[in-house]
Amino acid sequence: MTGGAPHAVAVGVDVGGTKVLGVAITPLGTVLAERKVATPRAAPGVGAGDRAGAPGFLAGALADTVAGVVRELWHGVASGTAGPSPAWPAPVGMGIAGLVDRSGVLRFSPHLEEVVGSDLVGLVSARLDGAAVRARNDAECAAVAEHALGAARGARDVLLVTLGTGIGGALIADGEVRIGAHGYAGEIGHMVVDPNGPSCACGGRGCWERYASGGGLERLAREAALAGALGDVVRRSGGDPEAVRGEDVTSAAADGDPDALAVVEQLGFWLGLGLANLVAVADPERVVVGGGLARVGEMILGPARRALEALVQAPAARGTVAVVPALLGERAGAIGAALVGRGGGP
Amino acid sequence: MTGGAPHAVAVGVDVGGTKVLGVAITPLGTVLAERKVATPRAAPGVGAGDRAGAPGFLAGALADTVAGVVRELWHGVASGTAGPSPAWPAPVGMGIAGLVDRSGVLRFSPHLEEVVGSDLVGLVSARLDGAAVRARNDAECAAVAEHALGAARGARDVLLVTLGTGIGGALIADGEVRIGAHGYAGEIGHMVVDPNGPSCACGGRGCWERYASGGGLERLAREAALAGALGDVVRRSGGDPEAVRGEDVTSAAADGDPDALAVVEQLGFWLGLGLANLVAVADPERVVVGGGLARVGEMILGPARRALEALVQAPAARGTVAVVPALLGERAGAIGAALVGRGGGP
Repeated sequence: MTGGAPHAVAVGVDVGGTKVLGVAITPLGTVLAERKVATPRAAPGVGAGDRAGAPGFLAGALADTVAGVVRELWHGVASGTAGPSPAWPAPVGMGIAGLVDRSGVLRFSPHLEEVVGSDLVGLVSARLDGAAVRARNDAECAAVAEHALGAARGARDVLLVTLGTGIGGALIADGEVRIGAHGYAGEIGHMVVDPNGPSCACGGRGCWERYASGGGLERLAREAALAGALGDVVRRSGGDPEAVRGEDVTSAAADGDPDALAVVEQLGFWLGLGLANLVAVADPERVVVGGGLARVGEMILGPARRALEALVQAPAARGTVAVVPALLGERAGAIGAALVGRGGGP
Repeated sequence: MTGGAPHAVAVGVDVGGTKVLGVAITPLGTVLAERKVATPRAAPGVGAGDRAGAPGFLAGALADTVAGVVRELWHGVASGTAGPSPAWPAPVGMGIAGLVDRSGVLRFSPHLEEVVGSDLVGLVSARLDGAAVRARNDAECAAVAEHALGAARGARDVLLVTLGTGIGGALIADGEVRIGAHGYAGEIGHMVVDPNGPSCACGGRGCWERYASGGGLERLAREAALAGALGDVVRRSGGDPEAVRGEDVTSAAADGDPDALAVVEQLGFWLGLGLANLVAVADPERVVVGGGLARVGEMILGPARRALEALVQAPAARGTVAVVPALLGERAGAIGAALVGRGGGP
């Protein structure tokens, strides 16, 4: 292909444990196209020794998936472009769920364990005619996007918090996402807020994400249900207090169920407690809360703001720290990845 | 005065709750002179309505003290200089114990409460022929100094922790001390590590500094003494288990007292737990530990390193984070203040 401003269109892909979500964006960040597919997994029952269990197999399959998403997005954009087609290969960015080092290699990920250590950047590039590919942590990408185009716009010091099954995060200081010495900064979900607290998948105890995430919500709800509360929610979830679903709690709370509201407010308290810690450490002017659980909105953010105000050191001197919902929804990571791919991020 | 390279000599003053410590440094950071005096306080028994209790009185007295220290340092340097005298007024930096906003005003300080809100920068400048005066938080200044001249030298991402009566701190990211939106970043001592923990002077409960500082050491020792341990240390401290002194614990531990060692190791564990939190958040390549309690050295840093390694998320992926003692001792804040005054800091 010829013509078109080089890199006028950028493609970003958010690579998560369950889905791969790609977007193509204009230079101003407008999303031209979106594509979402399931993350390939080793087939159930496939063990070590089989091809699917061999090292690198999933990385190759994942690279196929990512490259396929990029090509589809690209062809959609190129065929829809009036005038000269944009230049191929375009730069590609990936946001990956886990610890991504400064060279773009995934080094730790409970969600994509089989891909850890693989050269996913190289594998994707090889499938895309040698496209320039960069990879960063998914929350770092989301922060880049919210800062350029969303709820963090215009702010110089921002904490981004993503509430999903766990808690992800990123810090913007003096106008830039700061990724730390190795690229691992922002793992705020694994801040210990109670050393005698419940155990965490990371091997620790009392990590913040055991209280203030989607997983934390289900744990708090289970505790309440086992203590005899949340009767209606337990019925909605099928009758087993051990199997209360987070979405049943939040929808019951939205309907005014007092037990469910109490659990959601408890989660909001823990969210605010962790935010107070992070405000003390980083002094952001704004806290942007995204991720699936953030869709619940003010029901959680209200109590979180009150807990933040009550728990942070010297609230009168500090004034109010704005705690606001993210604006870019589930596409934030992919949009930020596109910006990173184009050289606009850390 | 005439001649000399402008600003060839810089003066910095560390303004703490008990002492005012000033240094004059060369362009390369060598300390030419040092001066230490007691922080002026309202006289005991002087109440509101008396002159000493009137707003601004202590700020004026403190400005007199700081300006006096600066002039003495300056005269010593100027009279000792072979060749032309350095230019007066020289820039002055102050490192102040508390929340110092971006304009240099102290906004919160348990140690210098009477000075909060005063224009200390202007008061000092007026006493020094209109010298350019800048003020920052004392730990931020210490971080500037350790980064330029001490244990953080050559590192891009560093966490500085100062262990005194409480815990102070500062974050260096991508080569710069990041002071946050208002100048209040680095208040790491008030990270809550147990919401049911002991109460803190900040109004919160379970702040990290209630476990891992000089004050934390005395609290842990008191608990141990009240539980019947630490017999020798209690005797050294005068016989009252409620009044165990931190220095008696650390010196007994250095002599091999097993009860005292157990308390010091407990403190090291809590230090490591908080470091694990901060490593997860900021991903420094190096942690520099300063402050009076850090003089105890490996007896605390050893257990802290082991706790950090055990508690941090994904230790195998991260590799070892270096935890090293600060190098500039109690002059770090003043040296950093001099660098800040010269325009070399945040």
